[in-house]
Amino acid sequence: MRPSGRALDQMRAVTLEPGACKYAEGSCLVKFGDTHVLCSASVEDRVPPFMRNSGKGWVTAEYGMLPRSTHTRTDREAAKGKQSGRTQEIQRLIGRSLRAITQTGKMGEITIKIDCDVLQADGGTRTAAITGSYVALYQAFQHLKRLNMIKEIPLSDSVAAISCGIYKGQPVLDLDYPEDSDCDADANFVLTGMGGIVEVQGTAEGAPFSQAQLSELLALANKGIGELAVLQRQALGL
Amino acid sequence: MRPSGRALDQMRAVTLEPGACKYAEGSCLVKFGDTHVLCSASVEDRVPPFMRNSGKGWVTAEYGMLPRSTHTRTDREAAKGKQSGRTQEIQRLIGRSLRAITQTGKMGEITIKIDCDVLQADGGTRTAAITGSYVALYQAFQHLKRLNMIKEIPLSDSVAAISCGIYKGQPVLDLDYPEDSDCDADANFVLTGMGGIVEVQGTAEGAPFSQAQLSELLALANKGIGELAVLQRQALGL
Amino acid sequence: MRPSGRALDQMRAVTLEPGACKYAEGSCLVKFGDTHVLCSASVEDRVPPFMRNSGKGWVTAEYGMLPRSTHTRTDREAAKGKQSGRTQEIQRLIGRSLRAITQTGKMGEITIKIDCDVLQADGGTRTAAITGSYVALYQAFQHLKRLNMIKEIPLSDSVAAISCGIYKGQPVLDLDYPEDSDCDADANFVLTGMGGIVEVQGTAEGAPFSQAQLSELLALANKGIGELAVLQRQALGL
Amino acid sequence: MRPSGRALDQMRAVTLEPGACKYAEGSCLVKFGDTHVLCSASVEDRVPPFMRNSGKGWVTAEYGMLPRSTHTRTDREAAKGKQSGRTQEIQRLIGRSLRAITQTGKMGEITIKIDCDVLQADGGTRTAAITGSYVALYQAFQHLKRLNMIKEIPLSDSVAAISCGIYKGQPVLDLDYPEDSDCDADANFVLTGMGGIVEVQGTAEGAPFSQAQLSELLALANKGIGELAVLQRQALGL
Amino acid sequence: MRPSGRALDQMRAVTLEPGACKYAEGSCLVKFGDTHVLCSASVEDRVPPFMRNSGKGWVTAEYGMLPRSTHTRTDREAAKGKQSGRTQEIQRLIGRSLRAITQTGKMGEITIKIDCDVLQADGGTRTAAITGSYVALYQAFQHLKRLNMIKEIPLSDSVAAISCGIYKGQPVLDLDYPEDSDCDADANFVLTGMGGIVEVQGTAEGAPFSQAQLSELLALANKGIGELAVLQRQALGL
Amino acid sequence: MRPSGRALDQMRAVTLEPGACKYAEGSCLVKFGDTHVLCSASVEDRVPPFMRNSGKGWVTAEYGMLPRSTHTRTDREAAKGKQSGRTQEIQRLIGRSLRAITQTGKMGEITIKIDCDVLQADGGTRTAAITGSYVALYQAFQHLKRLNMIKEIPLSDSVAAISCGIYKGQPVLDLDYPEDSDCDADANFVLTGMGGIVEVQGTAEGAPFSQAQLSELLALANKGIGELAVLQRQALGL
Repeated sequence: MRPSGRALDQMRAVTLEPGACKYAEGSCLVKFGDTHVLCSASVEDRVPPFMRNSGKGWVTAEYGMLPRSTHTRTDREAAKGKQSGRTQEIQRLIGRSLRAITQTGKMGEITIKIDCDVLQADGGTRTAAITGSYVALYQAFQHLKRLNMIKEIPLSDSVAAISCGIYKGQPVLDLDYPEDSDCDADANFVLTGMGGIVEVQGTAEGAPFSQAQLSELLALANKGIGELAVLQRQALGL
Repeated sequence: MRPSGRALDQMRAVTLEPGACKYAEGSCLVKFGDTHVLCSASVEDRVPPFMRNSGKGWVTAEYGMLPRSTHTRTDREAAKGKQSGRTQEIQRLIGRSLRAITQTGKMGEITIKIDCDVLQADGGTRTAAITGSYVALYQAFQHLKRLNMIKEIPLSDSVAAISCGIYKGQPVLDLDYPEDSDCDADANFVLTGMGGIVEVQGTAEGAPFSQAQLSELLALANKGIGELAVLQRQALGL
Repeated sequence: MRPSGRALDQMRAVTLEPGACKYAEGSCLVKFGDTHVLCSASVEDRVPPFMRNSGKGWVTAEYGMLPRSTHTRTDREAAKGKQSGRTQEIQRLIGRSLRAITQTGKMGEITIKIDCDVLQADGGTRTAAITGSYVALYQAFQHLKRLNMIKEIPLSDSVAAISCGIYKGQPVLDLDYPEDSDCDADANFVLTGMGGIVEVQGTAEGAPFSQAQLSELLALANKGIGELAVLQRQALGL
Repeated sequence: MRPSGRALDQMRAVTLEPGACKYAEGSCLVKFGDTHVLCSASVEDRVPPFMRNSGKGWVTAEYGMLPRSTHTRTDREAAKGKQSGRTQEIQRLIGRSLRAITQTGKMGEITIKIDCDVLQADGGTRTAAITGSYVALYQAFQHLKRLNMIKEIPLSDSVAAISCGIYKGQPVLDLDYPEDSDCDADANFVLTGMGGIVEVQGTAEGAPFSQAQLSELLALANKGIGELAVLQRQALGL
Repeated sequence: MRPSGRALDQMRAVTLEPGACKYAEGSCLVKFGDTHVLCSASVEDRVPPFMRNSGKGWVTAEYGMLPRSTHTRTDREAAKGKQSGRTQEIQRLIGRSLRAITQTGKMGEITIKIDCDVLQADGGTRTAAITGSYVALYQAFQHLKRLNMIKEIPLSDSVAAISCGIYKGQPVLDLDYPEDSDCDADANFVLTGMGGIVEVQGTAEGAPFSQAQLSELLALANKGIGELAVLQRQALGL
Repeated sequence: MRPSGRALDQMRAVTLEPGACKYAEGSCLVKFGDTHVLCSASVEDRVPPFMRNSGKGWVTAEYGMLPRSTHTRTDREAAKGKQSGRTQEIQRLIGRSLRAITQTGKMGEITIKIDCDVLQADGGTRTAAITGSYVALYQAFQHLKRLNMIKEIPLSDSVAAISCGIYKGQPVLDLDYPEDSDCDADANFVLTGMGGIVEVQGTAEGAPFSQAQLSELLALANKGIGELAVLQRQALGL
């Protein structure tokens, strides 16, 4: 029933390639099928003004799409002179998701800036970005540990994200672009490796959905996040 | 236990004052306790470029806060020259929420622009804004019906919104600012009068929350939305 | 002869509601008939760079209109990304008017930021804003005095503003929007309680006006400002 | 008493050099002492959207200062990415002043855009700009008449501007920069050749000024405008 | 002598991977050693306003760097709200270079927009971008030919670019980042496959260079461009 | 053959008027025929952040055109809110050209800011700007020497610039606007008084040009720069 022929609870082929950026302290090229996002983690030796002298660090994220990552060309945000509302929403979501599992009190007064750049987009770029950013962030902390700047990796859990939706009346896992453009409801779940909820964002695209459907979507998300957590550990050699 | 002395499932005093703007086609001054939002609906005789010749109308929203609506002054966005990411997120949410119950195919090729301006902020401005905007939108459609521009009110249901959260370990309804600043998790629910979910946005502020907690928050939201739907009908004289 | 039926030298009903903003150090909701402006005064514990170490304080103002304060909707300046020339002119005028009666050397190195937000506009928003801002500013100084941060209210006089114009060949006091859109000349006067001129801004909308007419407008302004000064004292309980 | 040694009612040496721009349809290099402003008038074959199909033309103005026209360098507005409030106020004033004497119904649906660029600034740049712009505008209309695009020069009168002020307690004519920085009150008058008032803008810099003083400043302005009107006629060979 | 151990006239390993973007009409991932640039060509069915009704097409380019393509993170231009002067210079250069070999009169009134996004930067990003863009552009024309929108590929020659410089007193070919940061002079050459000069941009970084040195750099460039032209033909299967 | 009747290797009449700005520390009004550029040099008592504590000074430039310096009016960059790519390219070129001959280590930690404002444009504005800026910069250093802030003029050579081009198949010196709009190739040369190359920027406007043609253009440039260097010395009284 799905355009891709996948089972209802089947994710796309997911790969995580850590170290994809030669210069970054941490990085990961994440692919959810034809959605490809390059995530890098850059360490900066200061925190934003509102965090100064707090003894805590900060993790933040920026997101962008290459103009021709999409089926038809999207205008370049740098040329338009501002980031869209969608871009800002996504980068705020990525930052919050990573901070939810980061023990900022144990990382020193530094900032880790995550850049998520979409090289190719086929639906689910924000969930792929969160999943890959976790790997990049972990690598950056490994780098700081090697330099003896921190004693242990200041992460309380792993974090990953997946989208689910009601497509042609059926709950399905990991929407691709054709499904995303034509679904009745769409929900992004950001969960920890241990199953805690970090973010839920569900939206009715057509008619409102029921509370039972929300539960079904969450069950699918649990399955997907379980698979992503395994791949994250493998990518990091844990 | 709550700073305001409210019961866990008790909302603040809510009032809806329709027709609060002398010139707008529809309007409502909504108060959730000390949170006051002025909502207006303006009819424009055209649709955005991507909707032209679709035979459909459009509903969109803008959101702003008066600089001194907040406990300490917030910089004016017009003076800074751009809207914050938070503002954009909120106004996109308001627009999606209203479109979810609007039969855009039955309103003609017009745009209704909702303006939500926060006069005073004590938590929950976005949920108050959605709740009041529904009243303003309804009034604007009544205005168009009086002018014989539409035959019937093109709304499939009512819509309202409420925030819930885990505060000091307990699920509570309708967070005010002191609770919002100090809660473990925060979820905004946008539901229709008939209980369908239009949007769910849950965020762990500290530790991740469980799936059982999400259900408890949703149950509280159902109660709150039920009360808001009654107030909306009363305000509109339905 | 006037659309409102007022006498030539009759002002609209004016009310001043001090303390209209729950959180601000000083505030006033001012109404000149259907023109409603919410004025707040926020105290900030620093001065702009060009005033540092001068031993003096600073008073400045910002102005904005809610998009649907006007008969037809006006674009939101925050969404357009800049303040119009008109907005900047008005906020500069408000700031100068208040500084003219403020003894900045007696207030300490603090800034008082006045926000004037037009909730409803029916002509004369800038004059209403100046009149209400004086009350908000006074309240903010009372607040500082209660905190023993200043010994006395550092204001040398009161200040208020009124517009006059040549409408259908007659000098009239306090133009409303229908008169403002159709007058031959329009002059805004900012006067102190003791009758000193702080600002005069007269503009011929159609044909130039004569020096005798300027004198007639000034005489009307004296009458109006006298009435406003009484209302200001009453509002402040002086 | 004046730093320049001038009599109280003596203007600086004023020169008007018409045709100073090789390419413009009209132009004038105006000098009020050390204040030098290059004014050009450009004819454009269309009107702004709000004037379309009105059968009327439009006159508008832009103003700028070269960064080193001032005693110490002023930041370039193009580099800062926006025009200051002061710049916008001045260019709006120039535009209004010229439109007050232009019979826009007799010029066809064209726009004349006036550019006033300050090459050197020693006080009074806006008044010099208005005085020189009139000459540039007149020349542009002469150009259109030579092309038979208009039958007669559509100007009902001439217009010029001068600043006056209370300097060390005395009313003086045509303030230069040292006087302007140190005066008690400052008023700009835009008058027609026949003595009608187009704009009055008076501001108390220190203490408020009296209504009698306003009259004295206006009397000085009349004298100055009379002299400027003669120079304008000479420059245009009328 | 060179940090990389290359001979003075030896280029880095260059690869051109056509079709690297799934959705674009033409694309190429170009690598000059550790400098990696993703070039895509997007066909748009219209031309800029200044080309309308000319019967000619248009080719233009945009350039960007991923924030962590560089050794230390570079701020994201979309977040800063503007493109730097360097970015604008480079994208203008790429556009001119491609137009120099495009027969715009034979392509119809369409625009081909080239996007060059630097994934990794080790010097010479603009020359790699031009070299790869030619391949992307050629592919886009092949695509149009397959659709019978054009009869033949409207390119009069191939084009490629290379940088040369005076490094430690010696003329060297294809500067990498360590050389670029420490050279005496730097020249970028854009040449056609037949050896014609499209652009020369030479800059003395330290002391001025001589006219003899310019000739030596040009000779090196000829060698490099010859090699690049072979690789371009191979990549396109010509 | 040239529209102006000049010989192929004949420059336009060039004049350099030092001290053209009353307030600037150095200045020069440079004319290349009908191209007039006002160059000023402003001394600022600080360096940009990236130069702090380096013991070195900085020289930088800004460039602008008056809106009606051109044959038809060009939009004002300050009104558009940004500088064009062309403007940025030119001001970066002027800055680099001047720094190439400035011994920044001998000028102290100050900045000299060059402003080049085009009063009238007939081709070659950037080359005139560089040529005049050298004179303004030299004057500013003379000013600093008179104040004993520097011991000697920290310039290693003079610098000037000229454009050459292939016009109707012939290499010509110093293109004016009619030639520039219609030439096959255009090259700007920035050379020192002793003949060293500081910058070469050659662009094929139509067909690519040959390496022999580049040499011919360089030969012409040598002749032109020789003449300019003489005029620069005369202007400075050296």
